[in-house]
Amino acid sequence: MDFSTWMSGIQQRTEVALAAALPSPDLAPTRLHLAMRYAVLGGGKRVRPLLCHAAGAVFGVDSALLDAPSVAVELIHAYSLVHDDLPCMDDDVLRRGKPTCHVEFDEATALLVGDALQAHAFQTLASRLAGIAPARQLEMLHLLAAASGSRGMAGGQALDLDAAIDRPGEAGIITLQAMKTGALIRFACEAGAIVGGAAPSDRERLAEFGSAIGLAFQLADDLLDLTADSSAMGKATGKDAAAGKATLPALHGADWTRRQLAGLVAQAHDLLRPFGDSAALLKAAATFVAERKS
Amino acid sequence: MDFSTWMSGIQQRTEVALAAALPSPDLAPTRLHLAMRYAVLGGGKRVRPLLCHAAGAVFGVDSALLDAPSVAVELIHAYSLVHDDLPCMDDDVLRRGKPTCHVEFDEATALLVGDALQAHAFQTLASRLAGIAPARQLEMLHLLAAASGSRGMAGGQALDLDAAIDRPGEAGIITLQAMKTGALIRFACEAGAIVGGAAPSDRERLAEFGSAIGLAFQLADDLLDLTADSSAMGKATGKDAAAGKATLPALHGADWTRRQLAGLVAQAHDLLRPFGDSAALLKAAATFVAERKS
Repeated sequence: MDFSTWMSGIQQRTEVALAAALPSPDLAPTRLHLAMRYAVLGGGKRVRPLLCHAAGAVFGVDSALLDAPSVAVELIHAYSLVHDDLPCMDDDVLRRGKPTCHVEFDEATALLVGDALQAHAFQTLASRLAGIAPARQLEMLHLLAAASGSRGMAGGQALDLDAAIDRPGEAGIITLQAMKTGALIRFACEAGAIVGGAAPSDRERLAEFGSAIGLAFQLADDLLDLTADSSAMGKATGKDAAAGKATLPALHGADWTRRQLAGLVAQAHDLLRPFGDSAALLKAAATFVAERKS
Repeated sequence: MDFSTWMSGIQQRTEVALAAALPSPDLAPTRLHLAMRYAVLGGGKRVRPLLCHAAGAVFGVDSALLDAPSVAVELIHAYSLVHDDLPCMDDDVLRRGKPTCHVEFDEATALLVGDALQAHAFQTLASRLAGIAPARQLEMLHLLAAASGSRGMAGGQALDLDAAIDRPGEAGIITLQAMKTGALIRFACEAGAIVGGAAPSDRERLAEFGSAIGLAFQLADDLLDLTADSSAMGKATGKDAAAGKATLPALHGADWTRRQLAGLVAQAHDLLRPFGDSAALLKAAATFVAERKS
């Protein structure tokens, strides 16, 4: 199948799964539920679900089994954006072309939206899932929690707070980004392998692939922050430089970044070589992540 | 065993288990890890762990098996306090006799502390736990996530935000409190039964017990807010009235509240009747929760 057709299908499928997983706005507390849906639905490239589905496809997994980990990782990602946009963090007013959650609702509600979305992510992944053994679900829950916590995404945010003062070098920036964005992307890929019952070595291979693609994702993001305008991105751009935060593209320039991206894609593709044609979608997903224009 | 001796033992045991579960402050990001430990360790009555251990004791469960659910529920409780104290929520500066987390550190760090503690709660409960079947762990994870989310604790906080404007009546206040504080207390009791492999009817009985005690806990808390001074409580008091938030003690007075508390304790004790002497600690814990003076 053509990658972009497949991608649209998974994006639509993910939208439906997210809408079904989130509490109905008819249930109390209605304002909180409306705000949760506002923060999650109707936007986003769904990169993590795409990678999870493409990774599962390597092992011939039925898409239905990949909805729960895909929804869970996307809910964690969505909560992190809501909290990241708060005045005490990045103080952003625009996200995915819409007012950020605390602007549309209020700050206290946005705080609770993030908190409730995180809980909902774990609730979704801890639900009874036909076709996935409880022990595998537990492994995914443990990995997702670790990827979200102080040694993963939240820890990366903490390092990012200090980056304007600490001015980390290249190694420090890579560590920060591996935690802040890499951890969830790595989880998405590894989860596909876990649901697929992959052998430990294949699972590790998918996790390594996820780490390479996580770094590529962030490089592509920082390159866009440096070069694109905010209308194309649907959010503020040029903020890293304004905040005095070094990024690798800012340190080394656009040409260097494009070479790095090509290298990371080649490395990711190499990791998939043993899987042959079953990895066609995942290979294409890697290229997509590195070359995206918004 | 004398209840207060047992209680001190469980409180110490919980302190040790929490300290071991939290990431070391030697690990990066060190400031975040220091702040997480600051928010969790060295204070608190550990009511939820006490109830979890006492509930497990009904079924003869080894205490070691109850550490993970006890730590998990206490981490969720601790994160909720950190977020609840933030300027956009209750804007409190004093908690357990110490400066609140955002005062001692900063607002962005406190936000991330709460986020990371929530993830850590689920990570702890999703770890490999010898002696607990994966299916039971999953049940606990699902219950804890539901108790923490938009239909549990976080949802109760959202209703509480609106309470100054909506001015809910008695039924509304009870619903709000069942979500805001009752859900975690109910989880703590039900988790003890799950680890103990209780029959479904016994498990439901423990959950109902938890709901009664959750309501009693909140009534006792609101009574203290009405009658105690802040030095005895280690936090601000009289804030509910100042914020225009109705509580049942404020509506009905202290005498009514004491009668309600006695009724709830009697109801809770009745629920434990079938368990005979094995429920002695849990009975004593119920009395303790309702009659505490700080």
